Amino acid sequence: MDKILRIDMGAEGGPKVSEVPAGEYAGMGGRALTSTMVAKEVPPLCHPLGAENKLVIAPGMLSGTSGAMSGRLSVGTKSPLTGGIKEANSGGQAAQVLARLGYAAIVLEGKPKGDDLYKVFINKDGVKISADNSLKMLPNYDLIEKMKTEYGEKIACISIGTAGEMKMCAASVAVTDMELRPTRHAARGGVGAVMGAKGVKVIVLDDTGMKMRPPKDPDKFKAANKKFVDGLRNHPVTGQALPAYGTNVLTNILNEAGGYPTYNFKEGRYVDAHKISGETQAETENARGGPGSATHGCHRGCVIRCSGTYSDKDGHFLSKQPEYETTWSHGGHCGICDLDAIAKMDFMDDNYGVDTIEMGVAIGVAMEAGLIKFGDAEGAIKLLEEVGKGTPLGRILGAGAGTTGKVFGVERVPVVKNQAFPAYDPRAVQGIGVTYATTPMGADHTAGYAIATNILKVGGFVDPLKTEGQIELSRNLQVATAAIDATGMCLFIAFAVLDQPETFQSLIDMLNAFYGLSLTGDDVVALGKQILKTERDFNARAGFTAQDDRLPSFFKTEPVGPHNVTFNVTDEELDQVFNW
Amino acid sequence: MDKILRIDMGAEGGPKVSEVPAGEYAGMGGRALTSTMVAKEVPPLCHPLGAENKLVIAPGMLSGTSGAMSGRLSVGTKSPLTGGIKEANSGGQAAQVLARLGYAAIVLEGKPKGDDLYKVFINKDGVKISADNSLKMLPNYDLIEKMKTEYGEKIACISIGTAGEMKMCAASVAVTDMELRPTRHAARGGVGAVMGAKGVKVIVLDDTGMKMRPPKDPDKFKAANKKFVDGLRNHPVTGQALPAYGTNVLTNILNEAGGYPTYNFKEGRYVDAHKISGETQAETENARGGPGSATHGCHRGCVIRCSGTYSDKDGHFLSKQPEYETTWSHGGHCGICDLDAIAKMDFMDDNYGVDTIEMGVAIGVAMEAGLIKFGDAEGAIKLLEEVGKGTPLGRILGAGAGTTGKVFGVERVPVVKNQAFPAYDPRAVQGIGVTYATTPMGADHTAGYAIATNILKVGGFVDPLKTEGQIELSRNLQVATAAIDATGMCLFIAFAVLDQPETFQSLIDMLNAFYGLSLTGDDVVALGKQILKTERDFNARAGFTAQDDRLPSFFKTEPVGPHNVTFNVTDEELDQVFNW
Repeated sequence: MDKILRIDMGAEGGPKVSEVPAGEYAGMGGRALTSTMVAKEVPPLCHPLGAENKLVIAPGMLSGTSGAMSGRLSVGTKSPLTGGIKEANSGGQAAQVLARLGYAAIVLEGKPKGDDLYKVFINKDGVKISADNSLKMLPNYDLIEKMKTEYGEKIACISIGTAGEMKMCAASVAVTDMELRPTRHAARGGVGAVMGAKGVKVIVLDDTGMKMRPPKDPDKFKAANKKFVDGLRNHPVTGQALPAYGTNVLTNILNEAGGYPTYNFKEGRYVDAHKISGETQAETENARGGPGSATHGCHRGCVIRCSGTYSDKDGHFLSKQPEYETTWSHGGHCGICDLDAIAKMDFMDDNYGVDTIEMGVAIGVAMEAGLIKFGDAEGAIKLLEEVGKGTPLGRILGAGAGTTGKVFGVERVPVVKNQAFPAYDPRAVQGIGVTYATTPMGADHTAGYAIATNILKVGGFVDPLKTEGQIELSRNLQVATAAIDATGMCLFIAFAVLDQPETFQSLIDMLNAFYGLSLTGDDVVALGKQILKTERDFNARAGFTAQDDRLPSFFKTEPVGPHNVTFNVTDEELDQVFNW
Repeated sequence: MDKILRIDMGAEGGPKVSEVPAGEYAGMGGRALTSTMVAKEVPPLCHPLGAENKLVIAPGMLSGTSGAMSGRLSVGTKSPLTGGIKEANSGGQAAQVLARLGYAAIVLEGKPKGDDLYKVFINKDGVKISADNSLKMLPNYDLIEKMKTEYGEKIACISIGTAGEMKMCAASVAVTDMELRPTRHAARGGVGAVMGAKGVKVIVLDDTGMKMRPPKDPDKFKAANKKFVDGLRNHPVTGQALPAYGTNVLTNILNEAGGYPTYNFKEGRYVDAHKISGETQAETENARGGPGSATHGCHRGCVIRCSGTYSDKDGHFLSKQPEYETTWSHGGHCGICDLDAIAKMDFMDDNYGVDTIEMGVAIGVAMEAGLIKFGDAEGAIKLLEEVGKGTPLGRILGAGAGTTGKVFGVERVPVVKNQAFPAYDPRAVQGIGVTYATTPMGADHTAGYAIATNILKVGGFVDPLKTEGQIELSRNLQVATAAIDATGMCLFIAFAVLDQPETFQSLIDMLNAFYGLSLTGDDVVALGKQILKTERDFNARAGFTAQDDRLPSFFKTEPVGPHNVTFNVTDEELDQVFNW
């Protein structure tokens, strides 16, 4: 990971590949690298789809090592959705493979002259980029099948579906999982549209002949990793809940807490939630005789294993096990309680290459506009088909919830910085509202997952219905998350890291043993703060102000049941999040 | 004009009308009143289509008097298009009638509970508001015919077409002209969408039995008005060019100057411009035996008379004489050189109630996206029909050029603050670029018409291709315009006012004689500055920064012929516009 691969897609005579030393970016990984590079190299007022924007794809600091959970891939750019800086990260195999191939980052730059579509192949012998217009408008699953035929099964792919080619603001960058399916996505903020604007359909990685990245102190690294894994296995969330039910274990929990946004944030509890809960999902999966629920990771080295497969009644693959955010966005948010329909939409999202959160929320906003009724699963699937076809209606939805609201004149549109809310009502869980409002990313739960402490009582407890303590909670989580996103570690390690000091220490020990450093907890905090500072500085230069760190006003005026609460954290308090 | 009519559309049990004294707003008119009220009463971060936004409709200080040219009606609100403060003003009869009825403003407030559509009738006996769902989805022309049948021909109407009901961001507020046609529009920024969100279809005004507003000093007023009219008649622009050819006199002039944006701002000169010029238009109109070109005003009391009627080959009314901005937006911008097609689109725009600038530019952006080819007049008409029908494609276009670009992934989108550029290329006329970038309104030529001095050599001369002097020019024009927009005077008086000190003085004398004041030129400047300060303060509270006062980056990187120039005014210079 000491080199950076820059591909100038706008070079005269076709794409120009250059491998350069990591230089000033040496030692950085994941979100630290993508955000630092975007902030330094991309003009904040450039058009996200223009020549001046860049797409930075970076494994984390520990990706490609034998360290557990280190398979996250960061994708950074100026977002076509928010207009601000964006880091979206994904599981899947690519981060490990890319890191083992020695790359700290792939950077797509410039703007193609013609309309050729390119594929990039990288293995131990180097980089090959070639125009391949036979790939045009292939959805992700077909594309990956084609790549398997062409390059064999020992590959990992980073790709866009049809949505990315159409430069939709909801377009994701897909990453293949251990089964070589395009089920893992750097989904948020339209990063796939930027890849599409660069004219790159797929990056195929093959690390055959490459070795695991070697730690400076192998023994210490091994020992720290063992402690780390033990910590994850001992924690109830990472050791029991997630492996048993996947992320969808949250449906019943959030519904019980009254924080499950239903019918486009009109209610906080969904009467049919039990029909789409993780428990029901696992039962269904097991009964149908598929490979069973929650039995494997999305990348090698995962010990939490929250992934699964969802089969139809005849036991045929329908989609990966839909995540909680997806069963919510296509489910409760739209008043849909049909797991098969949700799995079908999950597959379509992965196949077209769109963010399931943005997509589901956009469909809910279309329901609010009266295009179809809440609860109409068939109608929702049809709307999603329009996205795949790129009809005008599909383009509207594919441009995200904010644009859908704007085009159809809807007032109640749950977005911050034009990015759709995830699956937690900020009125019933005030801490997550602080994160939605203030993270540089636009509404994003992963940026500072206050659900942990507000609802799951991980890392202590802060009453979700009160405003006290939420600013500090969100701040600390945002700082910790930014640092974790730099390591390449799956964010789910945070549950154990927050609750168990020895697990946090073992993570630091891994970093120190690998790089020969002597970082302390304070250094990790400083890293997180530095990343946030860099991102906020970019956004300020792009024209963002405190006024962009606000929830839509209806969350402050419209109480939500069952707790009958509004979002009560004041603007003045929100403005204190980054005053550390 | 000592009372304000507030209509709370959200009141329990239906709309609640209250007449209140002008109070703190007493003595204000037009843009001064609308912007002051919006800034004071509308929360800057509210949703433009929500209960907290207001639509303020105000005649100018001199509207309803016997003073010439005083028929402009200001419409102010938080814009659904830009998200900032908006004042769009219109000619037509309504301002005079409303002022004579004694109203300084009509303010539509709140949000209707149901989906009834309302009409408001105001005459000497008072205000009557009633639900009338038979008006739903009537285009403006049909609506006005219905109102004539119902209320007779001595009325003036303020209305929305289908676009306003559909809450499109390009929706205008239409005002009837002297022929009782809905041809005059407060067009920009989606003010019609806010009227639609308030559930008001039409405001019918009848001033039968009301008198001209009496000046404090009738003799002085009469004398000043005479001098003022003489000044307008003596100036070549207002005395000759505009009466002869209407605003479309500008086509040949701008094309000659290389500042006529062609094919979505790809070229600065249009080879077919002569086919759609004011000269050709007047010739066509005269040959077809219609009422002739440029023979009447849009409201009683106009002495410039730049309006006309455009008939088809058989002498039947096709539309009002299309304005320069319209012959450009639907014409050269889209590579269309067919005056009949342009007149047809002008009629459709007026009928649906959309801004011709936003609409034409959006269609040009759709052409850039490849939906239809540049030059395809029939295709453009079909696209516009979609807007009328409110299909998904029509909704996209009706949401404006910015959204059209976002939805179709287009990089070259000529907008500032999401509002479409008017008919002047800021690279060939750098002064107007300063206005586009910095006015609180979003790209708007009327906010500081640098064309006057850059091209027409009115008020001196500043070389359009150089950066020197443009900041001061735009600043002075923006200040003067804000003040003129408060008086209710047509902006076209500015040509004479800028060139002839005695005409400027006669305008001040009119104000002083009418109100018993002793204003000086400095007071007028102070008024203009106060308005701009108020508007910029609102925008700052709504989250606007210096970064919003910028042109899209392609104007800085892509030179335009024939002069092969880019926009060269620096960001630092732009930030000096309001440092007076």
